[in-house]
Parts: sequence; structure tokens; C-alpha cells
Amino acid sequence: MLRNLSIAAVAALAVAPVGVFAQTTAAQAVAPASDTAFLFNTLFMLLAGLLVMWMAVGFTMLEAGFVRSKNVAMQITKNISAYAVAGAGFLIIGAALQNPVDGWAIDGFLSGTAPGWTGIEDAGSGAPGQGGVASGGASFFLQLMFCATTISIVSGAVAERVRLIPFMLFALAITSVIYPLQASWSWGGGFLADLGFVDHAGSVVVHTVGGWAALAGVVILGPRVGKFRADGRVNPLPGSSLPLSALGALILWFGWFGFNGGSAVMADAMQGAVDIGRVVVNTNAAGVGGVLAGIILTRALYSKVDLTLVLNCGLAGLVSITADPVHASPGLALIIGAIGGAIVVLGVPLLDRFRLDDVVGAVPVHLGAGIWGGVAAGFVNPEGSVIAQLVGIGLIGCFVFGVSIVMWFALKLVIGLRFNPEVEADGLDLNELGLEAYPDFVGYEDA
Amino acid sequence: MLRNLSIAAVAALAVAPVGVFAQTTAAQAVAPASDTAFLFNTLFMLLAGLLVMWMAVGFTMLEAGFVRSKNVAMQITKNISAYAVAGAGFLIIGAALQNPVDGWAIDGFLSGTAPGWTGIEDAGSGAPGQGGVASGGASFFLQLMFCATTISIVSGAVAERVRLIPFMLFALAITSVIYPLQASWSWGGGFLADLGFVDHAGSVVVHTVGGWAALAGVVILGPRVGKFRADGRVNPLPGSSLPLSALGALILWFGWFGFNGGSAVMADAMQGAVDIGRVVVNTNAAGVGGVLAGIILTRALYSKVDLTLVLNCGLAGLVSITADPVHASPGLALIIGAIGGAIVVLGVPLLDRFRLDDVVGAVPVHLGAGIWGGVAAGFVNPEGSVIAQLVGIGLIGCFVFGVSIVMWFALKLVIGLRFNPEVEADGLDLNELGLEAYPDFVGYEDA
Amino acid sequence: MLRNLSIAAVAALAVAPVGVFAQTTAAQAVAPASDTAFLFNTLFMLLAGLLVMWMAVGFTMLEAGFVRSKNVAMQITKNISAYAVAGAGFLIIGAALQNPVDGWAIDGFLSGTAPGWTGIEDAGSGAPGQGGVASGGASFFLQLMFCATTISIVSGAVAERVRLIPFMLFALAITSVIYPLQASWSWGGGFLADLGFVDHAGSVVVHTVGGWAALAGVVILGPRVGKFRADGRVNPLPGSSLPLSALGALILWFGWFGFNGGSAVMADAMQGAVDIGRVVVNTNAAGVGGVLAGIILTRALYSKVDLTLVLNCGLAGLVSITADPVHASPGLALIIGAIGGAIVVLGVPLLDRFRLDDVVGAVPVHLGAGIWGGVAAGFVNPEGSVIAQLVGIGLIGCFVFGVSIVMWFALKLVIGLRFNPEVEADGLDLNELGLEAYPDFVGYEDA
Repeated sequence: MLRNLSIAAVAALAVAPVGVFAQTTAAQAVAPASDTAFLFNTLFMLLAGLLVMWMAVGFTMLEAGFVRSKNVAMQITKNISAYAVAGAGFLIIGAALQNPVDGWAIDGFLSGTAPGWTGIEDAGSGAPGQGGVASGGASFFLQLMFCATTISIVSGAVAERVRLIPFMLFALAITSVIYPLQASWSWGGGFLADLGFVDHAGSVVVHTVGGWAALAGVVILGPRVGKFRADGRVNPLPGSSLPLSALGALILWFGWFGFNGGSAVMADAMQGAVDIGRVVVNTNAAGVGGVLAGIILTRALYSKVDLTLVLNCGLAGLVSITADPVHASPGLALIIGAIGGAIVVLGVPLLDRFRLDDVVGAVPVHLGAGIWGGVAAGFVNPEGSVIAQLVGIGLIGCFVFGVSIVMWFALKLVIGLRFNPEVEADGLDLNELGLEAYPDFVGYEDA
Repeated sequence: MLRNLSIAAVAALAVAPVGVFAQTTAAQAVAPASDTAFLFNTLFMLLAGLLVMWMAVGFTMLEAGFVRSKNVAMQITKNISAYAVAGAGFLIIGAALQNPVDGWAIDGFLSGTAPGWTGIEDAGSGAPGQGGVASGGASFFLQLMFCATTISIVSGAVAERVRLIPFMLFALAITSVIYPLQASWSWGGGFLADLGFVDHAGSVVVHTVGGWAALAGVVILGPRVGKFRADGRVNPLPGSSLPLSALGALILWFGWFGFNGGSAVMADAMQGAVDIGRVVVNTNAAGVGGVLAGIILTRALYSKVDLTLVLNCGLAGLVSITADPVHASPGLALIIGAIGGAIVVLGVPLLDRFRLDDVVGAVPVHLGAGIWGGVAAGFVNPEGSVIAQLVGIGLIGCFVFGVSIVMWFALKLVIGLRFNPEVEADGLDLNELGLEAYPDFVGYEDA
Repeated sequence: MLRNLSIAAVAALAVAPVGVFAQTTAAQAVAPASDTAFLFNTLFMLLAGLLVMWMAVGFTMLEAGFVRSKNVAMQITKNISAYAVAGAGFLIIGAALQNPVDGWAIDGFLSGTAPGWTGIEDAGSGAPGQGGVASGGASFFLQLMFCATTISIVSGAVAERVRLIPFMLFALAITSVIYPLQASWSWGGGFLADLGFVDHAGSVVVHTVGGWAALAGVVILGPRVGKFRADGRVNPLPGSSLPLSALGALILWFGWFGFNGGSAVMADAMQGAVDIGRVVVNTNAAGVGGVLAGIILTRALYSKVDLTLVLNCGLAGLVSITADPVHASPGLALIIGAIGGAIVVLGVPLLDRFRLDDVVGAVPVHLGAGIWGGVAAGFVNPEGSVIAQLVGIGLIGCFVFGVSIVMWFALKLVIGLRFNPEVEADGLDLNELGLEAYPDFVGYEDA
């Protein structure tokens, strides 16, 4: 199997748009669902898609609170523009790359050829009676929202320094090409799925992908002006509004029930309903584990509980359970989440040591805990194997980090990524947007 | 048909409570739905109603962020009081005006006579087996939330100057009389529906109605102190918190899936489910189009991306698709939304030229893009015609703007609309509420 | 019946873990539900559970806005840590105390013995065809969220002075022991249910429980430094952000539709759907009544509308209808809610008179209006009686207030509850967390 894997992997990376997808043509035959199952699945998929859309709002608030007041409007602009770019890019390009052939789980939806501007006409048709388990539109929307999540992860890591246009171009690359290509390897019958790689809702396929792209951006961009002092000390540069960050983190927690639950929709709606119940309980338990680990560890290590770390630990708990929220018991989910939280508490100072400036902690939360979640699924999922998980994590990581490094570097060369240091010190809002996020209030820099 | 229209229109305006509704008595016979369809429709209608309720929160945050810090508490008070007035007024008066006769889509709910304090007892009964497609309570709640949206649109436009009591009286007028009367012309078998006017979820019936009432208020109230200088220049008066406004705009986007989706509930639940999937995809695509248009146009025109305009452009995209989110392809929805966004970018300076002070941009977003959305539905909907759309838009506009002008003017004469200029300059919060929204923080005016 | 009651009550308090629950063993036989009903109920229960989870976010924002800026991060930390403690405590201990025997409404879920770390493995199994009406996981999650609500109520009342660790220990006590024990008296066939005590979604079982525990905390903790002056005057100590509090209150309103609606899920899904529709309409009407009462009364009494009171009045309206949102007409619900609002307007100064420092007004809102709601259900519910309601309210109150006073007092003795006055005056954020919630902004205390 590993021999086949290496051949398949090379082939996939080389001729992905042709070879890989041809393999998946006949992969999934979906049993025709009853009207009741179709309605239930559609409604649940819509609810899940809405909750994941709401996570985009959560990321926006989380990041707006974690940046300094002089960069808040810019951070919001980046998040909204990235969501818009994802909405257009995945619609026109990405969806066709992710599911280009017949035989995708939802038949009759995005099949045969790339939709392009003609094929889009049919998007959302997914008529009942064609063997579909849910409305094609609801399914497309959920896929789009997963895709959009990846760039939300990136935007926080590269905050307070990257310019808007190169960021939007990277957003276009990841949402219309990078994410969809690798998602097709794992979901809907790709070669990683054939190898036994399992990832229920995307600890690896979504979160490590965003995390690798974020890490590549952090490496190429370099740290913010003033983050790392010449004497080796780290300047914390605290965010402007902890309530806003807490709101964002809690929105993400809330939305995660849809993120994890939506992937439990299946042709057998009764089994799906039971699984969804388990998923919701386990997802919450993992977030709880992350928070408790964060409180205990920050108090033990620093003698004070650190709210910013606790928020990120909760999110890391949620990332950790995402690869398999179905098969764990709630108690085990709590422990898996707690380990995810511990990864964040240990990972944040590690980044500082390497002088990597990840503004919101996206790399430890989404990449660190995402890898852990992927590995954990190898233990928890009866059909999983740790080796297949490591292979999947490795291949996805190599592809995404490699392409992202190249992309960020090309953007740096061609149009430039950053402002000059004076502009960055003044704040991006005044210079790039010509406005202030909080124009009525006196800041310490003004006083 | 146009001949019939003019007669019907005059008759409608003259004897609306009797004549118009009598026409609709036998208009809609609803096929009895199966238990499954009833349950699905009820659940989806509830979800939609909740999402539209959540939009009221979105408007509140959007407007609280767009006003100056000295008027924030007052703006929140207005939004919450308006929601409460709508909740009581539509329950006691408005629902009976909108649906006073047998034959409304949900049989056995609000039928026969005005509910009044006796009839309310039955509100929410909508028993299964009476031919209904969904629970009467769920349907009533969704109708109420649509109604409440109209006054949320108005409150932003007239912010920072109108007094609380006259605003609450106008809220009572629009939610208990103005909105319900004209809604009955188009929805559930009114004379505009008979003429071929189509408006899926209310680009015209909700958004232009709010927009016309807002424009009337802006005209009668006059601009805020200091908005327009004697030398002809415009003082921008930036809002106190862009993150709060962004949160509000994103809440509205999230809620819009219910706003547009809820109107796709139908007796054939399977068809409804497929339509709802399309609606969600198209609604998102239109918002995306609006945002992208806003980014491109503000950068092209002003060389800087303007976040406040981008937020409003996204909302305008959503307004534009509301009249028909079912029949457009996602690509077309994106274009329709982009045109809506362009209307806002061009409309905001136009208002300034006419010295109309619309604090949050409600008139370009809801009236401008609402008219465009109504017209677009004439092209997109196979059963629509542009002429019927223009007739509907015109009649609704004449009625709402006319009645609103009279209402605002009467309030001005009888109890007065504004504070004296010194009080307004000090801020409404201290004078009308006796408190501050952000009492701990030093503002530039204090410093 | 009253004679039996007193015996049962004593027995319950004395031997609760054995005696009471044995009585309920065979109490509820649930009719097997069809697949359609199972799917509908599961989906609605999940939606309700998510909405109640969202209420935890609402409480966090409400309280973060109502405390001074120097204590905001600590208040958020308390809310998130309490949610996490509830998530672990109810999972491991509380659920087993609330439903320790066979015969709970959802068969095959939490049955037989305390789950402990073994039993948790089965949590969420709730297989279809076992006579269940919904997924076990969905049901467990909803129960957990109800439980977590109680500590959210407490955290606001004791804000700005209690230390984190004793607060977390109290959170553990209430969510893993106090709440589950008394919930089993009323829900799922307990002895209060046998006496005729009715409480649809917990005006008494949730809100007065949180309110009593909050009152006990306020009594034992004493007021904040500077709240009550030596000359008898009350220092208002306004909160740092009214928009944040308004957001929180409106999130709570939104979530309340799930809080009240989730309890209307029943084996007969069609009846459940109709009831849920009524519940949503009535819940909204009661909140509306509370807001209107708050506006009218604060204007009448103080000549200015008080937004902080209006927010709390709306919440009190929602608390008031929670004990029976099914049987009231919307008009009656509006009146019940208005009376709840009036209780808050009158109750807040009453607390001041007794020098009880309840930072957010949790006691009047949740205890005052919760008692009223419990009494009102005795009139509104055809199966209710005012005497049974008073007995239930009294027994639950005695138990919760008594245990809470002991618990708070023990924590005070053993580990101490408060900081020294200088630390409290400096703010808890800097001292307990080592950070600031709004580090970029100049406050009046800094200026």
C-alpha cells in the first residue's frame, strides 16, 4: 500500500487535474434517498453551511480584536475581501477542480466538466430523484464555506503588515486552486481516501492547509516592525480589544458545531442524525478540554491565566477533534482537545524562538492542533491507521507549504508584500484605507 | 392590463381595507401537505424567522458603529424600541391588515377577521391537517420579522438627531399600517400579484419600503448639525466603531440566508428544498458581487478602498438579489449584486449633492439597490415582466413615500422631531438617556 | 397532596440520590417515534441546543459590557471557564445525578448507573428504534446547555470582585451537583412533577436557580469597593460598553427561542411543531412586553429612558414566559412579559436599599421574573395550579439558596473569595491576568 502510495502521490502532484480525478470517477455510488432523508439532509446541510459561514464572521472579529487599533479596519477589510474572493474563485474555478468528474457524492451537481460560466448555471440544481442525498445548492454552499475557512486562517497570521492586493491574490490562489486540489485527494473518493486516510471534517484538509499557508506567509513576510528587539526580547504588541477577540472565538466555537456536524450528513439519514448528535457532544467536549488545559497550563507556567491563550486553546481543542468527532467518546474527546490546547501553550513561545511573527496564533492553533487531530483520528477511527494519517498529513503539508512559499515569494518579487516601515508604524488603516476604526477615541499613541 | 391596473390601484389606495382584500379571498388554495412536508416547512420557516430576527441585531450593531460615540446608546435604544413597537403593533393591528380574509397561504391561521385581542388567542394555532404547509406560529413569526425589518432600515438613516418618542410613533405607523397594507398588495394574492408583479423576498416590498420611509424622514428632518458646511463642503462625521459596523453588516449577511430562503418554503417540500439550496448559493454570490464591486470601484475612484462603502456595497448586493434569488444562476447573481454595489458607490455622493443626510447610507442600499433588484427580477424571473415590476415599484413607492412624508411632517408639527442644536452637539445619550455608551474611555472631544 | 408533599420534600432533601430517583424509574414510557419524527426532533433539538449554547456567548458579552474596563478580561475569563467547567462537570457527574435510572425520556442514553468515565463512552448513542424521540447526543447537549446557563447567571452578579479559582469551584458545584439534583425533581418525572409543578423550559428550574445562587454569592461576597458610600448614597459604577451589553442582551433574546422552543419537542412531532410555532411567537411577545414596560416605566419614574434597565426588562420578559410559553396567547404573553419588566424596574432599587451589589441585575431579572414566571404558569397552564407552583418555587429556592450560601461561605473560609481593596481598585485584569482588555485606549482613570 505504501508502494502504491508513493507512485500515486507523485502522479497526483504531477498530473493532478487529469490522473487523480479519473481514479475517482466511479468511486461513490450513492443510494437513492427517500424524500424524508433528502429533506432532513438538505436542512442539516444548510444549517451547517450557515454555521460555517458564521465562522468567517468569527475569524473577522477574532482578528480585529487581536490587532492593534491602527490596523483594525484593514484587518476587517482583508477578511471580507478574502471571503468575497473565495466566493467568486471557488464558484468559477475551485469547485470544478475539486469535483471535476461524474461520481461525486452528490450526483448531477458539479459533474463531467468544469462548470465555468456555463456550468454555473446548473449549480444548485441537484434535483431530487437523481440519487442525491441533499440539495445540490446546499452541498455546494457547504463546500464553499469550508474552502473560505482556509483563507480566514491565513489572514490572522499575516496581519498588520501585508498589503491588501497581494493578500487578495493569495486568497484567490488558495481558494480557487490550492485548497480544492488537495481536498479532492481526500474527500469524495480521492487517492488519499483510497490509501485509508480519514479526516471527517478537515483537521488536516482544512485546518493544516490554512496553517501551512499561514506559516509560509509568516516566513516570507518576516515579523512586524518592533516585534522582535535587537536584544532578543519579544515585544508582545497586545491586541486592541479582548472582548472582540473573545466574541470571535466564541462565534467560532458556535460555528464549529456546523463545521463538524455538516460532515456527518449521509444517505442513511437516521444514522446521520445519531452521528450528528455524537459529533455535537464531542465537539463541545474537545473545546472544553482545550480551555481547561489552557487555564491550568498558563496558570502553572506563568502564574497568571492568559485569556488570549485560553481562547486559542479552546479553538485548538476544536481543531483537534475535527478529524474524527464521531467515534471518540465524550471523555476521550475532552482529552484529545486538552492535548490540542497544550500544543498551543507550548507552540506560541516556540514560534517566538524562531522569530516567526504569527499575530493571532494561527499556526499553533490550526497547524499544530490540526496535525495532532489528524494523528488522533488514526487511533480513534476504527477504519483509520496512524501511518495513513501521517502520509496524508505529510503529502498535504508538502504540497500546500511548497506551493504557498512559491506563491508568497512570487508576490513579494512581482508586486511587493509590505509597506515601508514608517507607514507600518503609523498603521495600515490611515495609509491604505484613509480612515480609522475607532475615530472617536484617544489612544495611548495619541495621548 | 395597465388599464385594469390603474383602476385597481386607485381603488386599492382608496378602499384598501375592503376592496383589495376581497379580491384575494379565494386566491390561493393550498394543497394539503404531508406530515413530512409540514415538519420540514415549519422547521425551515422557524430557522428563517430566527435568522431575520437576528438581522434586527445586525442593524442595531451596524448603526451603533456608524454613529458617533455620543449617540450610540440612543441609537441602540431606538432599534430595540422599534423592534418592540413592531412586535406589538404588527401583532395587534398589522397582521390583520395584511391578511384579513380567508385564503391566505396558511389556512386557519389569521383568517376571517382582524385578530384584535380576541383573535390573537388563535394566533399560532395553524393546526396540521387544515391544509396548512407549516405551523401558523412559525409563519406569523416570519411575517412579523419581515415587517420589523422596515423600521430597522429607517432608524439608521434618521440617526443622531430624531427624538425617541416621534421615532417610536413612526415605527408604530410603518409596522402596523404602512408595511402591512402594501405587503398585502403583492404577497398572498394581492392586486400587484395579479398584475404579474413578482418579488420573492422583498427587494421592493421590504427594502424599498424601508428606503422610501427613510428618505422621507431624511427630507423632513434635515441634516445633522455640522454635516454640511456653509462653504458647500461635506463634513464626513465618521462613525465611532468600524468593528461594530462590520459585525452588524456580517450579521445581516448571515441573516439574509433566512430572509431569502424563508420565502422559498412551499407546499411541495422537495421542490422547496431544492429552491432553498439555490437561494442560499445565489444570495451569497450577490453579496460577494457587491463587495467586489465596492473594492474595485472605491479603489478606482478614490485610490483607497473604503471599508464603510464596501460594507454597504455587500448589503446592496444582498438587497439586489432579494427579489429573485431562485431563478438566477450563481454567476448572474454575482453580476446583479455587483450592480447593486455600484449603485451604492454612486448613490452616496449623490445624496450629499442634494444635502440629504442619511447617516448609514440606508437610502442607496435599500432604496437604490431595492429598485434595481425589483427591475432585475423582471428579467430573471420567467414569469416576470419589467413593466409589471416598474408599476409595482412605482405604486409602492408613491404610497409609502407619500404616507411617510405626511407622517413625518405631522410628527414634526405636533410634537417636534429634533432637539435644539446645542443638545444635538452635546450628544443625544447624555440628554435623552442620561448615560454614556462608553463611559470609561476618553474621546477626542473630551481630550 | 400537600401532606404527601412535605414528606416527599423532606425525603427528597435527605436521600435525594436514592429515594427520589427510584420513584421516577418507571415514570415515562415513550412511544416509539417514526423515522420522520425522530429526524425532525433531532434537528430541532440540535438547533435549540445550539441556540442555548449561543446564549452563553450572550451572557459573556452582556457582562463584559456591564463591568468597568479594568475588569472586562477577567469577566470574559470567568464566563469561558465556567462554560468549560460546566461542560466537564455535567458530563462526568451532573448528567448521572439528573437522570440516573432507566425510564428517562430518551431511552438507552444515560440509563442505569452514573456514566462516569466508562458510561460516557455511551453518551450520544441513543440509537433509533430504541423508542427514543431524538438522538441521545442532541438531547444530552441540550440538557448540558441548560445546566451551563445557571452559572452564566451567577457570574454577572458576583462580577468585579470574586477571584477566579473560588468562582470556578462554585461553578463546578452548581453545574455538577446543585442544578442537576433539583432539575431531576421537576423534569423527566421527579416528585415536583408528580405534585403538579409545571415549568416548561425553566423559569424556576433554571432561572431562579441561577438567581438564588447569585443572590447567595452577592450576600456572602459583599459589595464592590466604592459601590455604597458611607453617607448612604449609591455609586452607579457604569459599565464600560453599552453596545457590548446590548449585543449580549440581543444574543440572549435570539437564543431564547431555542431555550423555550427546545422544550416543546415531543414524541408527536406534528404537535411539537405546532407548539414550537406558538412558543416562538409567545417568547418574542413577552420580550416585547418587557421592553415596552421598561421604556414606559423608566421614563415615568426617572424622566429619562434607561437603556441598561430596558435591556434587563426585555430579558425579564423572556424569563417570565419561560415557565409556560405554550398555552398563553401572544397578547397574554406580552402582558406576562411586561409584568416581568416591571419587576426589574422596581427590583433594582430594592437591591440597592438592602446594599446588595448585583453588578448586572441578575437577581431581579432571573430570580424576580423567574418566580413571577413560575407563578404565572400556574394560571396559564391548564394542568397547573398556583399552589403547586408556589411549593415548587419554595422548595427549589430553599434548597438552592441554602446550599449556595453554605458553598460560598465555605469557599470564603477555606480559600478566600476576594482580593484586597487596592487590587480591586486597580482592576482584576492587571492583577489576576496580567493584561488589559483595551490596551490601546486611554481611560478616564489614566487621563
